[in-house]
Amino acid sequence: MNKIKFVALSLFGASSLFAADALMDAATKAGLKPIPSEHKAQMKLIKEFQKGITVEKAELGKKLYFEPRLSKSGIISCNTCHNLATGGVDGVSAAIGHQWTANPHHLNSPTVYNSVFNTTQFWDGRSPHLGDQAKGPMQAMPEMAITPKMAEDRISSMPEYVAEFKKAFPKDKNPVTFENIADAIATFEATLVTPSKFDKFLSGDAKALNKEEKEGLKVFIDKGCATCHTGHNIGGTSKQKFPLIGEYKHANLGDFKGDKDGTVKVPTLRNITQTAPYMHNGAIWSLEETVKTMGENQLGTKLSDAEIAKIVTFLKTLEGKKPSIEYPMLPNSTAKTPKPESK
Amino acid sequence: MNKIKFVALSLFGASSLFAADALMDAATKAGLKPIPSEHKAQMKLIKEFQKGITVEKAELGKKLYFEPRLSKSGIISCNTCHNLATGGVDGVSAAIGHQWTANPHHLNSPTVYNSVFNTTQFWDGRSPHLGDQAKGPMQAMPEMAITPKMAEDRISSMPEYVAEFKKAFPKDKNPVTFENIADAIATFEATLVTPSKFDKFLSGDAKALNKEEKEGLKVFIDKGCATCHTGHNIGGTSKQKFPLIGEYKHANLGDFKGDKDGTVKVPTLRNITQTAPYMHNGAIWSLEETVKTMGENQLGTKLSDAEIAKIVTFLKTLEGKKPSIEYPMLPNSTAKTPKPESK
Repeated sequence: MNKIKFVALSLFGASSLFAADALMDAATKAGLKPIPSEHKAQMKLIKEFQKGITVEKAELGKKLYFEPRLSKSGIISCNTCHNLATGGVDGVSAAIGHQWTANPHHLNSPTVYNSVFNTTQFWDGRSPHLGDQAKGPMQAMPEMAITPKMAEDRISSMPEYVAEFKKAFPKDKNPVTFENIADAIATFEATLVTPSKFDKFLSGDAKALNKEEKEGLKVFIDKGCATCHTGHNIGGTSKQKFPLIGEYKHANLGDFKGDKDGTVKVPTLRNITQTAPYMHNGAIWSLEETVKTMGENQLGTKLSDAEIAKIVTFLKTLEGKKPSIEYPMLPNSTAKTPKPESK
Repeated sequence: MNKIKFVALSLFGASSLFAADALMDAATKAGLKPIPSEHKAQMKLIKEFQKGITVEKAELGKKLYFEPRLSKSGIISCNTCHNLATGGVDGVSAAIGHQWTANPHHLNSPTVYNSVFNTTQFWDGRSPHLGDQAKGPMQAMPEMAITPKMAEDRISSMPEYVAEFKKAFPKDKNPVTFENIADAIATFEATLVTPSKFDKFLSGDAKALNKEEKEGLKVFIDKGCATCHTGHNIGGTSKQKFPLIGEYKHANLGDFKGDKDGTVKVPTLRNITQTAPYMHNGAIWSLEETVKTMGENQLGTKLSDAEIAKIVTFLKTLEGKKPSIEYPMLPNSTAKTPKPESK
């Protein structure tokens, strides 16, 4: 597939290297897909991934996303590790959670932005969608460390939340369930989509990328990066053996060996300029070094410094516009609200 | 002073108990002051407390307030303990900071809302204003644990921040200083003002409080609560001996004994319905029990359950409207940004 793309692009010849239409076509053939820039279309696309979005559910989900009382300690929310202010990540090598415990496998927090487009969640890809994913970190001991019952007890102790759950889940008799908490959070997360100038380009605006950025895209496709980092999320839809070739230099950081078959989720590259450190174990802080490592371990190619620089120039075009988020004001605790437990 | 108020209010007689004009007058005489509801007037008032507010500085301050990279670990911001989503507090008994360390004196995080009106900051009142206060938690080992140099190095490594500091502090040659970081944060905090229906009442709208709420206010004044909980912030402007009378039941929680002279800051009562647990050591979760304790330890009065209920009804009127805050998108880290340190 990589070779086919290379041949296709070679047809442009040197003089037509930046013929945008041909490059757009090559990018599309490489499986790269834009986030539709029009709100309606975007919502339609999101709905294909995530059924049942309503404003009520997304608004409730926003509150729950920022809700520290969904952690045992009362001070950790989804936003602690997937901080919407900093590219949807925490910016540390391995996630730190309840009682300051680092992720036991030394796994790095992936970005929540555009995660609705991922068809595989978690580094070992064990979850197919966001609603299922959200239940993991809430319960994990080194993360939010809450039990489903404790989460339900906390939320149902606040009448304001109960009323909102009734609106968001009108068919449910007892809507405050752990399942619905996760579903509402996932619904909010489905709105966290960040179209960038690369989407404009893919959608037909030839001038959206400049000469250098187009050159970077060409190298990105030619070298085979788009073989795995493809689709709407430029990744997020498959698992691959890692390392495929040679030895991963930083394999000794943590004990993560991938899924049972040794495969690891291909992460999105959207907003990659904001989500350092990189790799599943957050071992590499430099984007250039990461590209180099991926070349060696996945493509079996020693990329030159110039090629790396070009690819990074392209990757910068994936930094997208974040949705405007009004910081939510959360319901008051009541006398019935179970107390936080920091131990 | 307490007795004078009582006499003044007694003049109303039973039939004129809810003559709003007279109660307004009594409240004003008791030193209770509204937050002006008009934006211009509010800004004028804030400027009296905090000189030099500009939009640029407040916007920069908002980013810094939510900035986790101002902590050594990179995951704790001002908003972690003074969460704007939950009444400006963390909702736990004693603040938890760097390496999950609880406040060594078992001190409870005070609300940041309306803190611009406090003329005394920290439980021992050691700081006169917000700009000075903000420097404390950033450096404290069990809180954000950063050094001024580390904070300056982190911020000055991000060109976007440097540009914003230049705009916010146009006269400074090297504007990224720890002093200016604290000043910008304080400037943002000065905008966190929450007018409530009590302010409407104090400003002349007799119908802003209902019969029960007015009755509660009367008890609040009559019993002497307003002696210390007075002024714009219904507290926040003085220190008092604590306990003044008898023994504080929960004195054994932590080792805080107040300032050198044994005095403790009188906290604001605004948004008190959202800032449990109460007392300097966060020992009491129930607002009713807190009112009872204050009656015993500060007023030497055993308040009846009915009186307590009335005071609490009044206190609920202090829950104010929070300013709308767009969650900030923070500048990207760069290769020069010093790495987070979780140890």
